Amino acid sequence: MRARDLMTDFPTVTLDTSALDAARLLAERDLPGLIVIDGDGRPHSILPGTQVLRLAVPAYCQDDPALARVVDEAHADLFLRRLGTRTVRESLPAQPRELPVADPKATVLELAALMARTHSPLVAIVEAGRVAGAVTLQSLLDHTLTI
Amino acid sequence: MRARDLMTDFPTVTLDTSALDAARLLAERDLPGLIVIDGDGRPHSILPGTQVLRLAVPAYCQDDPALARVVDEAHADLFLRRLGTRTVRESLPAQPRELPVADPKATVLELAALMARTHSPLVAIVEAGRVAGAVTLQSLLDHTLTI
Repeated sequence: MRARDLMTDFPTVTLDTSALDAARLLAERDLPGLIVIDGDGRPHSILPGTQVLRLAVPAYCQDDPALARVVDEAHADLFLRRLGTRTVRESLPAQPRELPVADPKATVLELAALMARTHSPLVAIVEAGRVAGAVTLQSLLDHTLTI
Repeated sequence: MRARDLMTDFPTVTLDTSALDAARLLAERDLPGLIVIDGDGRPHSILPGTQVLRLAVPAYCQDDPALARVVDEAHADLFLRRLGTRTVRESLPAQPRELPVADPKATVLELAALMARTHSPLVAIVEAGRVAGAVTLQSLLDHTLTI
């Protein structure tokens, strides 16, 4: 079994996609994260769902989530409005991390090693320099637990 | 909106649950991770799905996933057998991390701040010292994007 047998189409976003659209895509498609591509269709980064939220959290709560308690319930409910006109570019970590990327010939063991090392439940599969799809942890487990 | 409005029942495992059962639970229920409880029902840790895989990856591939290429496809397919008799205890990180845990009164902003800070798409909700359920990133986005 190789990555090409497990991979599925996977939505991509760009650095200029709005953070709110990214959040909607995560929610509607129930995705563990998003693949961010550059202008040439190459993988730029993997954006975990939790890091889209980060942009909507006021700076004073980021170091101490307990400080979020000072915001009353009615205002807290609207916190995603803070995403406003912000973009995916702003939600990425300042330090680029190792990218969970593999080619279609990668075995399930290569994919598992990559997911474990990068802590990413999502590996982008790249063919001829462009993102061709993704393998998720869910798909990997579904296919290997039944062998 | 408070954690109690978003939380759902969530399966828990113990430190002695077999790693293979944990992998099956992740796959069957399509979960982003598992809540590990101690003998008194208190949250011990959150186990991300990717870290269950780590136990099944030979040590020599953990630092360099490319080394997994030396294992042929037929053997790679069976990599989960390495979970064998191993347990959840062995798949947890050596250094305990900040636990994404909140009480039922937490607002959505508190939950979002916690998910963003701990990089966990899963927050355990604790009532009277015991895990009462969880709020997932998915549930948080579903409820706050429509406001």
